[in-house]
Amino acid sequence: MILGFLSDFGLKDPYVGIVKAVVLGSNPALRIVDISHQVAPQDVIGGSFVLGSAFREFPSGTVFFAIVDPGVGSQRTGLLAVTEHYTFLAPDNGLLSMVFRYSKKVTCFSIENTHYFRHPVSDTFHGRDIFAPVAAHLTLGVEPQSFGPPCPDPVRLPWPEPVITEHYIEGEVIYIDGFGSLILNIAADLIQHRGPVRKQFKADIKGMELSLLSTYSDVAKGKPIALIGSSGFLEVAINQGSAAEVLGAGIGEPVVVRKVPKV
Amino acid sequence: MILGFLSDFGLKDPYVGIVKAVVLGSNPALRIVDISHQVAPQDVIGGSFVLGSAFREFPSGTVFFAIVDPGVGSQRTGLLAVTEHYTFLAPDNGLLSMVFRYSKKVTCFSIENTHYFRHPVSDTFHGRDIFAPVAAHLTLGVEPQSFGPPCPDPVRLPWPEPVITEHYIEGEVIYIDGFGSLILNIAADLIQHRGPVRKQFKADIKGMELSLLSTYSDVAKGKPIALIGSSGFLEVAINQGSAAEVLGAGIGEPVVVRKVPKV
Amino acid sequence: MILGFLSDFGLKDPYVGIVKAVVLGSNPALRIVDISHQVAPQDVIGGSFVLGSAFREFPSGTVFFAIVDPGVGSQRTGLLAVTEHYTFLAPDNGLLSMVFRYSKKVTCFSIENTHYFRHPVSDTFHGRDIFAPVAAHLTLGVEPQSFGPPCPDPVRLPWPEPVITEHYIEGEVIYIDGFGSLILNIAADLIQHRGPVRKQFKADIKGMELSLLSTYSDVAKGKPIALIGSSGFLEVAINQGSAAEVLGAGIGEPVVVRKVPKV
Repeated sequence: MILGFLSDFGLKDPYVGIVKAVVLGSNPALRIVDISHQVAPQDVIGGSFVLGSAFREFPSGTVFFAIVDPGVGSQRTGLLAVTEHYTFLAPDNGLLSMVFRYSKKVTCFSIENTHYFRHPVSDTFHGRDIFAPVAAHLTLGVEPQSFGPPCPDPVRLPWPEPVITEHYIEGEVIYIDGFGSLILNIAADLIQHRGPVRKQFKADIKGMELSLLSTYSDVAKGKPIALIGSSGFLEVAINQGSAAEVLGAGIGEPVVVRKVPKV
Repeated sequence: MILGFLSDFGLKDPYVGIVKAVVLGSNPALRIVDISHQVAPQDVIGGSFVLGSAFREFPSGTVFFAIVDPGVGSQRTGLLAVTEHYTFLAPDNGLLSMVFRYSKKVTCFSIENTHYFRHPVSDTFHGRDIFAPVAAHLTLGVEPQSFGPPCPDPVRLPWPEPVITEHYIEGEVIYIDGFGSLILNIAADLIQHRGPVRKQFKADIKGMELSLLSTYSDVAKGKPIALIGSSGFLEVAINQGSAAEVLGAGIGEPVVVRKVPKV
Repeated sequence: MILGFLSDFGLKDPYVGIVKAVVLGSNPALRIVDISHQVAPQDVIGGSFVLGSAFREFPSGTVFFAIVDPGVGSQRTGLLAVTEHYTFLAPDNGLLSMVFRYSKKVTCFSIENTHYFRHPVSDTFHGRDIFAPVAAHLTLGVEPQSFGPPCPDPVRLPWPEPVITEHYIEGEVIYIDGFGSLILNIAADLIQHRGPVRKQFKADIKGMELSLLSTYSDVAKGKPIALIGSSGFLEVAINQGSAAEVLGAGIGEPVVVRKVPKV
């Protein structure tokens, strides 16, 4: 069984290794696949996006372990969420927002049964003391409902919805990846159902008008392009460069996508 | 069996992967758990702290592979240290200092038996040529004493001891984690045996007086706090921020902890 | 079986985890060993060097998965290369140049059989949609020739050859590792066949004359040194420091190595 692991722990400190040690100490047969540990510290929204763009690529039955937890030790509870194909462990702070958005049936439980915790529970590292032992028990076969009562209304973060009109879609940058590409809150299908993508659309960003093409090398090296990115969202990129740097655009930068008349 | 792996190799170069390849080439059944490979280059003290705050979280029987080795190829020998629960492979340069501090019984051997090395042995990469093949043989069942003679007096680095008086404890910053939190050389029990932590103590750093509370969110976002960190040491942090940046404090910064009268 | 994985995906985004999820979803028994995911974005030459200095350390039978792919979605094909001991999957853009240089017999196939792809194939993430499912099928036993026709002439990048004369060898910096050490395009054997290394040679770089010694600590802390690095190339380093920073040298910096008269 695979455990997909996402956090903002970084890779300099031993926190990621400690969580793995605790989980594997109880369930040595688990396969742990790191999704990212370089979510910006306490950036629940960014973590939600990274997890949301990754989880559906994992095999059915995968358990996800996601910790971005500015409220550790406070009253926020831990969440165990079961969907049709996956199970998720995370603080109930909105980190699963994108998972909820893309999952049809979700059943949530609050993680409250201290029987499954490691004692004493620290106030600052629930990843080690609560989520890791719960992950071990869960993957060894303990039923989800054993960990606590149903949680009917988990936290969902507001998602910046694009403005959709007959003539254009206005969205914004929601994530910047490691290549400097700007991911927008405009899902591919919003555009695709208006017609074939290639050369039919323009994207306006920072006063520039970019053609919507297929892949980075459709433009010369160093030139900007709009395209459908691999996570299913519209993306603004520079062929072999960083769009964030070259265009000077950050999270929240507005982008308008328009269908253009056939030439 | 788990191999816990710590180094200053970084993740840009293939050195970590090469060590794993050599170990797994001889013992494919090992589970390798990375602790950190981003110890600052040649920072034996920092590596000692990271290893020391992590190793007791691993299951009994774990073998640790720790390489921060400014003296590679010189006369320093390799060390094989056996404690009650664990075995360690490291250069004999003080990298195991914190392990020795927290382990009751330690038996050390010098790694000298070239029969277990990979030949030719390079002068610059003993991780690959000495420690990796020794780790493979050790985890396959070769007895510790087979690798060399007893080493009765391994290198121990001086640990900056806090000054403890009736009225205060004076310590210093010994490690800065990836969130920018300042870890002090003041163990939790030094404070806890003077009374319940919460609101009974103040920490003075950089002319500021901080309350000793339980968790980050006990203060407003951006505010400083002192607390018992997850590795069992006193810590100065900023809720959702970097104490190192905001307070302008680095390794060695002095901190005084005082018990305050009940209000 | 081991899958050695190299890319320029970085560790911030979920791309590495997504590839692993797809591969393990079909072949859960694989051991994946990361070589590096911090090749500079789209740096095919740098990726070629890192892979070239790592692959021979892996056990025979290892399959390598290497993606640095500025031309993703364009007409470049995918490559499956079989050598005496290993199999490689990579875009046909020169990323395997160093592998070819160090391998005696190489048989290459173009990856064209869409039967083994994941559909729909995106234009921007062939690592996930083409190479990952091909890696799973290959490691599960599908024959190399099943994935496409022979590729007799894969792309090879020009390698900057050193100038070799009776009296000196003139080379250049081809890679800078994470410690800031400068790796040269001068293989150890070019020097070694002229006589024993230690103190017999000098290296001239940036107007300085460095002795060719054995290991970093042969000079005082902070001092520069030339030596045979662990990957078998001549290297210029600073003991416990960064040669790239201290000497102000980058990729392409010329270095001349001369044999000096015995004293």
